[in-house]
Amino acid sequence: MNQTASAPTRIRVAIAGYGNLGKSAEQLVKRQADMDLVGIFSRRDNLDTDTRVLPAADAARYADEVDVLLLCLGSATDIPEQAAEFAVHFNTVDTYDNHALIPEHRAKMDAAACETAHLSLISTGWDPGLFSLNRVIGASLFPEPQQATFWGPGVSQGHSDAIRRIPGVIRGVQYTVPNEDAVAAAKTAGAEIPTGKQAHVRRCVVVADETDHDRIRETIVNMPDYFVGYETTVEFVSEEEFEREHTGMPHGGRVITSGDLSGSHSSVEFGLELGRNPDFTAAMLVASARAAARMHASGRVGAVTVFEVPPYLYSPQPLDQLVAGSL
Amino acid sequence: MNQTASAPTRIRVAIAGYGNLGKSAEQLVKRQADMDLVGIFSRRDNLDTDTRVLPAADAARYADEVDVLLLCLGSATDIPEQAAEFAVHFNTVDTYDNHALIPEHRAKMDAAACETAHLSLISTGWDPGLFSLNRVIGASLFPEPQQATFWGPGVSQGHSDAIRRIPGVIRGVQYTVPNEDAVAAAKTAGAEIPTGKQAHVRRCVVVADETDHDRIRETIVNMPDYFVGYETTVEFVSEEEFEREHTGMPHGGRVITSGDLSGSHSSVEFGLELGRNPDFTAAMLVASARAAARMHASGRVGAVTVFEVPPYLYSPQPLDQLVAGSL
Repeated sequence: MNQTASAPTRIRVAIAGYGNLGKSAEQLVKRQADMDLVGIFSRRDNLDTDTRVLPAADAARYADEVDVLLLCLGSATDIPEQAAEFAVHFNTVDTYDNHALIPEHRAKMDAAACETAHLSLISTGWDPGLFSLNRVIGASLFPEPQQATFWGPGVSQGHSDAIRRIPGVIRGVQYTVPNEDAVAAAKTAGAEIPTGKQAHVRRCVVVADETDHDRIRETIVNMPDYFVGYETTVEFVSEEEFEREHTGMPHGGRVITSGDLSGSHSSVEFGLELGRNPDFTAAMLVASARAAARMHASGRVGAVTVFEVPPYLYSPQPLDQLVAGSL
Repeated sequence: MNQTASAPTRIRVAIAGYGNLGKSAEQLVKRQADMDLVGIFSRRDNLDTDTRVLPAADAARYADEVDVLLLCLGSATDIPEQAAEFAVHFNTVDTYDNHALIPEHRAKMDAAACETAHLSLISTGWDPGLFSLNRVIGASLFPEPQQATFWGPGVSQGHSDAIRRIPGVIRGVQYTVPNEDAVAAAKTAGAEIPTGKQAHVRRCVVVADETDHDRIRETIVNMPDYFVGYETTVEFVSEEEFEREHTGMPHGGRVITSGDLSGSHSSVEFGLELGRNPDFTAAMLVASARAAARMHASGRVGAVTVFEVPPYLYSPQPLDQLVAGSL
C-alpha cells in the first residue's frame, strides 16, 4: 500500500554516559525485541556493568557499528560541550531540557548532523518530549486555547544536576511542586491560570558545609533559566537525613488544554505518574531512538524534534498492525 | 535549516454533510485564521446557513477550488457508500469510526486517492483519532504495556437509539459511565483490569407512561448486544426534567497505559472532558484538515492515518515558533 508501511528492522544502539539515565536506558534497550545494545561509551573504564564499555574519546571508531546513539548526558554542561561532536559521527537522540536554549541546541545539532548526513532527534523525554507533543496537539484543537503545564510533585533531574554542580554542594535535590488551585483553574472556562513560574514552587534540599550555606543559597536563587523568577526555597539537611528522605526519584505532571468550541467548553489532559523519573525519561528516549533510526533510514537528515516524528515510528509494531489493532 | 520548517499557507476547505458534525465543523473552520470556507456540499438545497451550499452531485466540478474536503458523513452507511468517490476528486479527512472495518476503509480510500494523486486522512476525531495516537505512543514506552481505554461519562447515540425504539418510550438517552474501580486498576502494577462489559456501567434515562415502566425496564436490561452482561440502570424522569438535564451531548474518556520500567512502575493517562461531542470531534477533524493539506502539498498521496502525521502539521503556527515556544 504505502512506502511507510514497512516493518521495522533491527536497530543497533549505543549509549553515551552512564549516570541514572544511561543505566535506565541500558536496561530498557536490553528489553526491546528489535534492538541490540552495542556498548556504552564512557570516559571511565571501571563501570559496573556486563555491557561492553568503550572509550568515549575513540567513539568515532565505532560509528559503523551503531545505528543510533543515546546521549545520556547532563543538559547543564555535557550536552552543550559534547553532543554536537557525537552528532558528526552518529545518529543521536538526546533529552536536552534547557527550554530557553533549545533553538540554539537545535541549530548546533542540525549543522553537525548535516555535515555527515546523520539525524539528531533532540529534546525527547517527557518535558521536553511527550509534554511538548501534547501542548502542540492540544493547542491545535481550540481557536483560543487556554493551556497550562504542571510539573510534579517530583524531583527535577536537570535542576538537581544544576545544584550539584555548584562548588561546595555535597548532595542536592530539587522538588517541583504544583499549585493545585492552578490545576483546577486550567480546566475552567475563562479562569485566570497562573503561569509556569507562579504555578510551582521549587524546593531545594542540599547537604553542604555550614560555612558555604549563604553562598550556595544565593547561587541557587540567582541561577538564570533554572531558578530566577520562581518561588525557590533552599533547605540544608544532614547527610543522614538526605540519604533517608531524599534519594528517590518520583515525578509526574500534567498538560491541560481547554477552550471554547462552537459554544461548548472542552478540556484535554495528558498526565504522568512516574515511579522513577530517569526510567521513564529513558523509556521515551529508547522509543525515540527507534523513530530516529527509521527516519534516517528513510532519508531524513539534520536536527529533528518530536513535533516532526510520525508517531507510529516509536512503536515496535508495524503500521498495518497498529491500524488493525489500535486505530 | 530544514525543508519542513516553512510557514503554513492558506487552506481552502469545503464540508460534505450538514448534520451535527458538519455544523460544528462549519463554525470552527470560520474561526481558523489560515482557512477559507469554500462551501458545503449537500443533497438538500434548503440548509439554514449563510455559507455557500453546493449540490453534492456536482462536487467534482468544484475540485479546483478546494484544498481539502471534510467528510462530515455518518459511519454506518454514508462513509462506506460515498467517501471513496469524494477521494477521487478531493483531498479528504473523515471520522470513520467502525473500528473493525477501518483496515477495509483505509484500503478503499487509498485506492481512490492514489488514482488521482490525492490524499485521504482517515478516522480522525477522538476515538479513533486522539485516543488511537495515545494508545500507540503509550504502548511504545513500555516493554510490557498494560493498557485500557475508558469511554464516558457520556451519551452513546447507538444505545440511545436502541432505547428509543422500544414501544412506549417517549424520550430516552443512555450514558456510558466508566467503572472507577477499573480505572484505578489500570494504573496499578499487576492489577487485573476489567475489560469491556465489566469496565463500564450503562445508565439509561427514560420518559414513559408509568404503566409502561416495568416492561420497558425489563426490555432494556434484557436487550442482547446492547445491555445484557452490563451493569445497567434505568431511571424514569418527567419530560420537563429530561428536557432540562438530558438533551446535551457531553462525552469524554481516558486512555491509560502503565507498566514496569527497569524496576519502577509508571502510568500515562490521556483524558478528555467534552462539553459537546460533535464539537470536539469537529475540532480534531479541522486540525487534521490542516495536516492533510500540508502533507499533500509536500507530495504525499494515498490513505494516511493519524499514526503517520508529524504532529506540528496540526498547528497553525510554523515549526520554528513551536520549537521556541512549546518544546
